[in-house]
Order: sequence, then structure tokens, then C-alpha cells
Amino acid sequence: MTIIQQMGQRAKAAARVLSVAGGKKDDALAAIAKALLAHTDKIIKANAVDLENGRNNGLTDALLDRLSLNESRIQGIADGVLKIVTLSDPVGEVLSGKTLKNGLEISKVRVPLGVIGIIFEARPNVTADAATLCLKSGNAVILRGGKEAINSNMCITNIMRNAVESVGLPADSIQLIEDTTRNSSVELMGLSEYLDVLIPRGGAGLIKSVVENAKVPVIETGAGNCHVFVDESADINMAAEIIFNAKTQRPSVCNAIESILVHEAVAQKALPVIKTKLDEKNVELRGCQKTKDILGESVVLSTEEDYFTEFLSYILAVKVVSNIEEAIAHIAKYSTGHSESIVTSDYKNAEKFTAEVDSAAVYVNASTRFTDGGEFGMGAEIGISTQKLHARGPMGLQELTSMKYIIRGNGQIR
Amino acid sequence: MTIIQQMGQRAKAAARVLSVAGGKKDDALAAIAKALLAHTDKIIKANAVDLENGRNNGLTDALLDRLSLNESRIQGIADGVLKIVTLSDPVGEVLSGKTLKNGLEISKVRVPLGVIGIIFEARPNVTADAATLCLKSGNAVILRGGKEAINSNMCITNIMRNAVESVGLPADSIQLIEDTTRNSSVELMGLSEYLDVLIPRGGAGLIKSVVENAKVPVIETGAGNCHVFVDESADINMAAEIIFNAKTQRPSVCNAIESILVHEAVAQKALPVIKTKLDEKNVELRGCQKTKDILGESVVLSTEEDYFTEFLSYILAVKVVSNIEEAIAHIAKYSTGHSESIVTSDYKNAEKFTAEVDSAAVYVNASTRFTDGGEFGMGAEIGISTQKLHARGPMGLQELTSMKYIIRGNGQIR
Repeated sequence: MTIIQQMGQRAKAAARVLSVAGGKKDDALAAIAKALLAHTDKIIKANAVDLENGRNNGLTDALLDRLSLNESRIQGIADGVLKIVTLSDPVGEVLSGKTLKNGLEISKVRVPLGVIGIIFEARPNVTADAATLCLKSGNAVILRGGKEAINSNMCITNIMRNAVESVGLPADSIQLIEDTTRNSSVELMGLSEYLDVLIPRGGAGLIKSVVENAKVPVIETGAGNCHVFVDESADINMAAEIIFNAKTQRPSVCNAIESILVHEAVAQKALPVIKTKLDEKNVELRGCQKTKDILGESVVLSTEEDYFTEFLSYILAVKVVSNIEEAIAHIAKYSTGHSESIVTSDYKNAEKFTAEVDSAAVYVNASTRFTDGGEFGMGAEIGISTQKLHARGPMGLQELTSMKYIIRGNGQIR
Repeated sequence: MTIIQQMGQRAKAAARVLSVAGGKKDDALAAIAKALLAHTDKIIKANAVDLENGRNNGLTDALLDRLSLNESRIQGIADGVLKIVTLSDPVGEVLSGKTLKNGLEISKVRVPLGVIGIIFEARPNVTADAATLCLKSGNAVILRGGKEAINSNMCITNIMRNAVESVGLPADSIQLIEDTTRNSSVELMGLSEYLDVLIPRGGAGLIKSVVENAKVPVIETGAGNCHVFVDESADINMAAEIIFNAKTQRPSVCNAIESILVHEAVAQKALPVIKTKLDEKNVELRGCQKTKDILGESVVLSTEEDYFTEFLSYILAVKVVSNIEEAIAHIAKYSTGHSESIVTSDYKNAEKFTAEVDSAAVYVNASTRFTDGGEFGMGAEIGISTQKLHARGPMGLQELTSMKYIIRGNGQIR
């Protein structure tokens, strides 16, 4: 048995205990928050090793910043854990139930998934975030973080394991794979005997690799090629504000937009207003010929590739479309199914857009930036699913659970 | 582009139409039922070719019977389709909703999955069953049936396609892969650009092959290594009746039991009563040494393999266990997570068993044979999921859907 298979076996045993641990899970979370704060110095020391290695390996300043932990960030992590304590336990929720004619009482009850694998990149805060969300929902977790953060991750994981053990739950509820070579992630993707689901958290490359190689069920997260469609009847100032917000408030995240579609009947009037607003942040526009005809030479001529691209920066693709049908067809072709918005004052078109656009979140007259577990009131989020099976959109505690039927009888046979 | 890729593309286009087809889907179902009856002779003629080929290829009588269609079976298929018309449309159901502080109105709405692939074996009735359940839930379907039934399947599919078209919905809502070589099923398992989910319906071999080879999300169905545990406090006659029913009422189905576990404190008294009942149907017992000590030489000594086996026949594995913990641990190790039952009169043990046994359906004092979409009141069933992601237990129309968030605003930005 390999080390990772042994971890799988221990995780499965821990999951059986966690599935019926009830309020003890909150005790463990509180102990984790306390221990993280108590060991702030230790975490900062481990993190310093990662930062030093990162500098020696030529990591960019942006990556070093993501990797870096200080007192206030550790306080933030602990606060996040304490927030999870306040959320209600999804396990045991009765989803529905009835009594059949033969007297059988049947109820559908929420249960944990079991063992969750998480593959993530350089942010050490994900270690605590992901582990504690899994713990609260009664799942054991096997974490596999990036090599850049391995010292921080090992330190945080050990602190969490000791805290979990201190309240009488299995330390193996939370395990970290210390081997950060490609071998270990490939092995985790094939651990079908022990893993109930694998969730990749990171860039498009990581997610693609997991989706293509995994033998275990995967929940795809995060790829967001989002659109705003400016309908013929749009309030143009509202459209410009929504586009500006959705593109520039935080361009590097998955719910930021990458393309806008503008109805030709309003393009002449709307595009200059939108451009003036986007110029405040020097957003580069890549437009179709009609866009260029209206906005002039400062607009780069777009390629088909541009419409497929998640720029994650101050670049926006623009297309003038003949009607709402063309807008919906464009979204069906190029979108990753994350979030799309229509700006309109027409009731029928609002209804048409929300009915026909097949994405996790479909907006009328609002910014796509709201697609977020916190904004949606879930309290916490482990990622945003862009697939249709099991979970779609922001995933909170409920999305980390399954269900079972419990049937109570008094001797019924068929 | 291969033929199957083209089918995928056409299915995706059809799915977009079906997703907003509303009541027209019921018109299509009614047209299908009518057309199947109107073309009974044609179906029987096509089926005769399959039966002739089957006889020439040496199919067993049991397989030929499964394959065979006659007037009354076709009437049964049409009745099944009409029953689906009476079920309420899952699409558009609002699952939850609220208004956020910023005025955004958010609702979680049920939508179709999109394109569903179904791989199945020799029963031609599955063609109509599966296609019409997918249609009602707003999904396009690509069917890949076994070669034994290809003429029947082609005939039934053509009749359904014409009926769907006659009410103005796309014929490509229902497509059948006519190539029945292994190549076509392998290609379908890799059709990730077009398929939202693949559901295998058939024996353990088929399901295993799909789970191992598919690149698209799969819902595992049907493998049922189910257990009854006779607790110390069990009503022994009730236990014998439940075991007899669960083993012998229909041994070839997935919700029949394969093993029983008997508490040692009651084994001396219970096992002879259970055996006497099972002798009525000449059930072969394969027991542990303690079972043999009590029941004598007529019991075959069980191997570990027996506890892993889905016999699907009049064979039952028996084990005497020291306590409920051992019973739960045995089930955790050997069960396929389908259905398990405890026979007990002890409240605490009933609660413990239902909480700790991690299977799709967990019973107290009832036969496992009730795990069925019809019995659970779902109206229809496409299979029984033994996985924890997306759907667990009997899958009806709701389990063939996903959801999306619709968010209505008036200019909200972050």
C-alpha cells in the first residue's frame, strides 16, 4: 500500500466518526481557531521558509504576496474558522419525508459525502478554509497544496490536526500530502477506492488537468468567461456602470466579465458611453468590425480566440449583435457557464434571457460580481462549480453533502 | 467530425429547445404513446428479426424472453409513457429564493441537465422508458443499446422521433447509436464536449466498464450487495419474514439481499427459524463456522468472497456477529451502499444503525425490496444510484435535472 492509499484508508475511517460527530465538530473548529492564533509565530516562521524559497526560485511579487502570511492574515484565517462555527450543521437536515400507504415512514436526510480531496495552488489560507468547511460538513479531507507553500501548509495542518484530536475527534479528519511532485496529484486523482469527490481549486490549467485525468468524481470550479449583454432597451448609464463594475472591480476573479455583447440598435449610442467609463481604468477593448466602426482605431480588432479567453485582466472583448437570439447563441458557444447578465428594460427579453441562458448564475440588471457564496448568503464557500452535476454555482456547506433515505417500518414486506 | 460527435452536436442543439419547451413535452409524450400503439405490428416485426438473430446466436431462453416484445408488452410500454405525462414537470420548479439586503432577488430554479447518454443492454423497453424520462425532464438523450435488440431499438426510436417532430419539437431530442460495436460505447464515454452525464443501465460488468473508462460524469446504478441485520432484540418471526421476502420475492434484482448478519445472542434461536422459512424456496446458505455449528452440515462454509458477491439467485451468505458495531463494520466493508435493514425492537440500536450505516436506503424492520422509484412514490425511475454525488437511491425526474440561480436586480454593483 502506498503512502497516499494509507492516507485514504485513514481518511475513510475518520469520515465514519465525523459523520456522526454532531456538535463536536464545532468544538474542533473553535479549537482550531484558538490554536492558529496561539501558534501565530510558528506559522509565520514556517511561512518565512516558503517565502525565502520562493524568492530564490524567482516567484513574482504577486505570487509572493499571495503566499505571504502575517499576523493580520492569520487573524483573518482564524476569524473565518470561527464564522463557520456559527453556521448551522447541514448534516441531519431532513430534506423531505412522508408516510407511505403501507405505513413505511420514509425520510430523505442530509449526510456527509465522506472523503473529499482538494488540490490547490500557492495560497496557504486555502489549507485552513477548505479543511474547516469539510470538517463542519462531516467530511474527512485529504489536501494536496502547491510546493511553494508546503512549509506553511504542513505547519497549519499539524496545528489543525492537534486541535481536532484535542476534542476527541480523529486527527486524520485532516491530512496533507507532503509529496508535492506531480506523482502525488496523479495518484490522488486515481484514488477511487477512498475518495468520494475531488475538488480542484486554482487556475484553468490545474482544473483542466484534473478533469482530464481524474478517475474519481470531480467538481469543476472557477473557470469564468462571463458576459454582459446590453439589450436594445437598456438604460445605457446602468449598462456602463454594471460593465465597469463587472470588469474592473477585481479583474482577476472568475465572476469578472470578459466580453460584452451590444444590441446593434443601441450600439452607436451605448458604446461611447461604455468606453468613456472603461477608460477610467484604461481597459483595452478588442471589438468586432462594427465596434471599431463606432469607436474608432483605438479598439483592437477581435479574433475568435478573444471570445474564448478568460483574460483576468483589464482587457474586454466586445461584439455588436443583431438581436437577443444572437446574444444568447454567442453565450451558448463561448461561455464557460459561470455568470451572465442582461441589461434591459424589456420584460419579455429579461424572461427570455433568464430562461434560455444556461449558466450557473443568470442576472438581470446587475453585476456578475455577485456570484459568490458570501454575497448569496451561504456564509462560506469552497469554490464556484461550473458543472451541472451535483452542485452548480457557489458551493457552501450543503454542496459538500449527499443524502440518504431512512425508512422506518414495523415488518413491511413486498 | 465522427458520426457520434455529430449526434452530440445535434443533441446539444435539441437540448436548448427542450429546456424551454414546457407543456409541449407532454404533447410529445402523448404522441409517442399513440404512435407506439399505432405501429405495434411494425415493432413486433422488427423484434422478430432480433429474436431470430438471437436464436441463431444461441441466446438463452431467459435472454430471449427479456428481448421479446408482443402486443401486451408494447401496450405496457405505451402505458408507462402515458404515466410520465401525468407527472409534474420538474423544470422551472423554484427550489428556494430570497431578497438580499441590496435588493437583489435571487432564486434557485430547477433546469434540465442538458444531454444525457444512456448505455444499456438487451431490453428494448429501456429504449422508450429512458428516452421519455429524459424528454419529460427537458433533456436530449443519446441511447446506445445492446446489439441483441438493435432492430427493435431502431424501430422504436424512429417512431418516437417522428412523434416528437409531429408536435414541433426536434427529432434529435432522441437519438440512437446504430453502431453496436465496442468502439461506439467507448466513443460515447469520451464525448465530454457534448454529454452532461452518462448513465449505464445493466449488469455489474457494464457498470464497471463505464465507471473505469468514462471521461464524462457518470451516475453509477444498480449494484446491490444488500444486508439484513438481525439484532439481539429482533422479533424473530418478523426477521424471518423480512429475510424471506428480501431474498426470494425477486432474487435477480438489485434491492434483493445477499447476506444476513445475526447477533450471536439470538443466533441459536433465530437461525433455525430463518432457515426453515428459506427452505420453502430451497435457498442455499453459505455461513460462517458459528452458523454451521448451529444449523449443521447442510450449510456451506462461507468464504470472504461470498460476502462480496451479488448472487442475484437463491444463495444467501450468513454471518454471526458479536454486536451491532461488528454488523455496521461488516456492512461498511462489504456493502455496495445500496440498501440495508436492521430488525430490532431496541430504539437506540435502530437510531445507531440508521445514523451509522452509509447506504442509499437504510431500513428499520422492513424489507430492502422497497428501494424503488415506484414504491417511493416518484412515479417513474431511471435507475438506482449507488454513488453519493448528485443522486443517491432511486432516480426519478428530479434526479435528471440540475439548477441555476436567477438574480433580478435594478442596477446593483459591488
